[in-house]
Amino acid sequence: MTDVREKGPAEAARVGVLGARGRMGMEVCKAVDGAPDLELVAAVDQGDDLTEVADAGAGVVVDFTTPDAVMDNLRWCVERGVHAVVGTTGFTEQRLDQVRGWLADRPGVGVVIAPNFGIGAVLMMQFAARAARHFESVEIVEQHHPRKLDAPSGTATHTARLIAAARAEAGLGPAPDATRDEVAGARGADIDGVRVHAVRATGLVAHQEVLFGTTGETLTIRHDSYDRASFMPGVLLAVREVVRRPGLTVGLDALLD
Amino acid sequence: MTDVREKGPAEAARVGVLGARGRMGMEVCKAVDGAPDLELVAAVDQGDDLTEVADAGAGVVVDFTTPDAVMDNLRWCVERGVHAVVGTTGFTEQRLDQVRGWLADRPGVGVVIAPNFGIGAVLMMQFAARAARHFESVEIVEQHHPRKLDAPSGTATHTARLIAAARAEAGLGPAPDATRDEVAGARGADIDGVRVHAVRATGLVAHQEVLFGTTGETLTIRHDSYDRASFMPGVLLAVREVVRRPGLTVGLDALLD
Amino acid sequence: MTDVREKGPAEAARVGVLGARGRMGMEVCKAVDGAPDLELVAAVDQGDDLTEVADAGAGVVVDFTTPDAVMDNLRWCVERGVHAVVGTTGFTEQRLDQVRGWLADRPGVGVVIAPNFGIGAVLMMQFAARAARHFESVEIVEQHHPRKLDAPSGTATHTARLIAAARAEAGLGPAPDATRDEVAGARGADIDGVRVHAVRATGLVAHQEVLFGTTGETLTIRHDSYDRASFMPGVLLAVREVVRRPGLTVGLDALLD
Amino acid sequence: MTDVREKGPAEAARVGVLGARGRMGMEVCKAVDGAPDLELVAAVDQGDDLTEVADAGAGVVVDFTTPDAVMDNLRWCVERGVHAVVGTTGFTEQRLDQVRGWLADRPGVGVVIAPNFGIGAVLMMQFAARAARHFESVEIVEQHHPRKLDAPSGTATHTARLIAAARAEAGLGPAPDATRDEVAGARGADIDGVRVHAVRATGLVAHQEVLFGTTGETLTIRHDSYDRASFMPGVLLAVREVVRRPGLTVGLDALLD
Repeated sequence: MTDVREKGPAEAARVGVLGARGRMGMEVCKAVDGAPDLELVAAVDQGDDLTEVADAGAGVVVDFTTPDAVMDNLRWCVERGVHAVVGTTGFTEQRLDQVRGWLADRPGVGVVIAPNFGIGAVLMMQFAARAARHFESVEIVEQHHPRKLDAPSGTATHTARLIAAARAEAGLGPAPDATRDEVAGARGADIDGVRVHAVRATGLVAHQEVLFGTTGETLTIRHDSYDRASFMPGVLLAVREVVRRPGLTVGLDALLD
Repeated sequence: MTDVREKGPAEAARVGVLGARGRMGMEVCKAVDGAPDLELVAAVDQGDDLTEVADAGAGVVVDFTTPDAVMDNLRWCVERGVHAVVGTTGFTEQRLDQVRGWLADRPGVGVVIAPNFGIGAVLMMQFAARAARHFESVEIVEQHHPRKLDAPSGTATHTARLIAAARAEAGLGPAPDATRDEVAGARGADIDGVRVHAVRATGLVAHQEVLFGTTGETLTIRHDSYDRASFMPGVLLAVREVVRRPGLTVGLDALLD
Repeated sequence: MTDVREKGPAEAARVGVLGARGRMGMEVCKAVDGAPDLELVAAVDQGDDLTEVADAGAGVVVDFTTPDAVMDNLRWCVERGVHAVVGTTGFTEQRLDQVRGWLADRPGVGVVIAPNFGIGAVLMMQFAARAARHFESVEIVEQHHPRKLDAPSGTATHTARLIAAARAEAGLGPAPDATRDEVAGARGADIDGVRVHAVRATGLVAHQEVLFGTTGETLTIRHDSYDRASFMPGVLLAVREVVRRPGLTVGLDALLD
Repeated sequence: MTDVREKGPAEAARVGVLGARGRMGMEVCKAVDGAPDLELVAAVDQGDDLTEVADAGAGVVVDFTTPDAVMDNLRWCVERGVHAVVGTTGFTEQRLDQVRGWLADRPGVGVVIAPNFGIGAVLMMQFAARAARHFESVEIVEQHHPRKLDAPSGTATHTARLIAAARAEAGLGPAPDATRDEVAGARGADIDGVRVHAVRATGLVAHQEVLFGTTGETLTIRHDSYDRASFMPGVLLAVREVVRRPGLTVGLDALLD
């Protein structure tokens, strides 16, 4: 068992994928395979033995498994000095603390856990939070395929909350709105004071627009996601960055600065 | 009193404006003045005498006055063989029938009454009605300044009704929508089965987007109005066309074909 | 050999696909299979025998083959009274005349040949041609993936030509443009006097925006195509309509009215 | 002559406007007048005496004059301890150094000089520069009224340069582009390797879209300016911030963080 800190750069680029037969895992394998500076050395799934990953000399592991499996995988990685990039869901504050505990004993190891690897979506949220305190008005319009069960989307709700927090911090009151005569629902959902509209139509994939307005001008930040593959640049970014960031990093934000 | 049918083309282009000191009237005076083929020969308002218009030899009158004044103005025009273009509101089916009655006695005179002189808005509605039966899904997003009292806008409501009628005629059922978990209002207002979302923000003027979706593609028709002046091309079109269209024409649609 | 005019409606919905193993052909098979009112009865490709289609009792054939094969296929269909929907490219005026000749002898048979089965794209072009004469200004922005070889796209060029013809017919001169100081290329390509801009970026699929402007307002018609599947609603529409339209129909336009 | 550092907060909000009869100056007077926390105490223009500003006890001066007049005005302000917000153009590095020299002797005085007071435009450029290194592709589409003389706009050119610098720093090569068959101009102007397209149409005011693309997704940042009034929130922000920022601040960017 070699500590990753002792590895040369060539070895650090050896990547193992856990959950390799899932939809996201398959995309990750393809993306790692196609990246000239990375080598896919192990692709395992439920039922496979993790020692395969160790034997292959993986320096970084990407985990898109299940909430049931991910904690065991992570402890295994940290103990062996293997960096980890995690897209599996279900991380509570408690779980994050547990990971921090393991990492305290292995100061050279890095773990990146992100709920969203879409670079475009993460930047949209960052920019929205930054713009929020400079505009009197803001509304969100998200657009998705009609098979979606929730309205608004999780991303839209999260964006609205970031904006609401930034407005509160800047001392901004409610956006002006003289509406007196409303057909129910026309003005959208109220998420912490921010109006959010959810459009559903066949042909759409996943889109979001954040519209800011002040006297005489508007600023619009729009994200269009067409494909599951859109998460791959973010996963590859994390794989490249995790080796330089010991400890726990939550969210893609920190890697984008 | 000369019948307009006996006038030469030069005279037909002599234009009088009623309600000339109102906001729309002032724009009309400016627009007529700026058109090389039209001459502004009379600009009257409340308190002025209509004989001024007759004396000036106006062949076409544009009326942006009030529901109280417009019927008297119109009867005066029709009786004198002066064509009329009317943007004043408040026309019921009853009032339109009264105008038709006057025109029956003066077969050469034309009257155009339109609730909306925005060519862009009228074409948007025409196109939306035409596209409606070819797409599984459709939603409307309208965007206005925050001083607006009603939500959705009258134009959005009207567009939704045109779309709903076209869908019904084509035998289309409701658009697919799997939403199960909705924050109240997120899915917009339901206007005859068409979802309409109303965005309000400082900086916006008057905008509307109609989004159609079917397998793998969307078609969007968007109208942006920045200025009251946007109604002027429609008013000038009507002034030029009314002399060739005896009888009553309601709406700009007919003039756009 | 039965003439299709003698078939009942149930049989008319029996569909055979030629070129069934090509990319478009496979999509057509899937789409026909998924349509409740149509039945996929034959799927043949290069090397297969067309008698398979006859034996299966197909009333309509969809041809997505090659310019080399399509004329023989079409003659075979027309002679046997089988309606045909053709997406294969390479139709010259000469070829169309040949098809008209065959159809003259079989007055009940319908053939629909269309270069583009995207309903959204066809409507975009129709609406653009209609709007053209009402606006002083018009420009086209098309956006595609960066693997595309031509700029602007064929659809954009075709749209520009339709608009230019409509402007000429309406007596409109060139759109106003005071540009004096231009970095080469900034104002786009000049297609019959209409400016066309071609954007290329990873992540994009196939998009086009036609922007019309007049005093104080703009009208924008936008088409987004995400997927080859976007042609299927147009193909199915043609399959359903061809049985009611004897003779040759070129282009989807006629079927959309 | 009182140093502004000795003034209480109430006095610091006393604002004088230089160039008050110019188009921008008039807007500034209106905006200051309408702000509850600011008081317009002097509005002077060419021919007026600056002592009027001093007599009125202005703590902050806003200068929208001419390159000829602005340096004398600024020296006068700095010497008297009056903070200054400057929108006048023509500042070279040399001129900025001269201002820094004056300020060195008056450490409590603040001067903000900005070429663009549009908060939306400045944020658009900031966000574009930040996003640049995370996307394989980027292009700019700017849209303006047809009376504009230059193409592309100064803002678009500046944005392209910021993006090009960020891409170079991140080690990104040219964006992928397989175009082989181009109608001249279709692919836009090349500004430091970034493609920029300039649309001109009646009805438009001033708009810009920056489109970033990577695998499966795009991020679009769009700014719409409808009105000269759109610069006022930026001017007011500078007036409020300049009193807390001794020394020279160039550009609105620093005030937005």
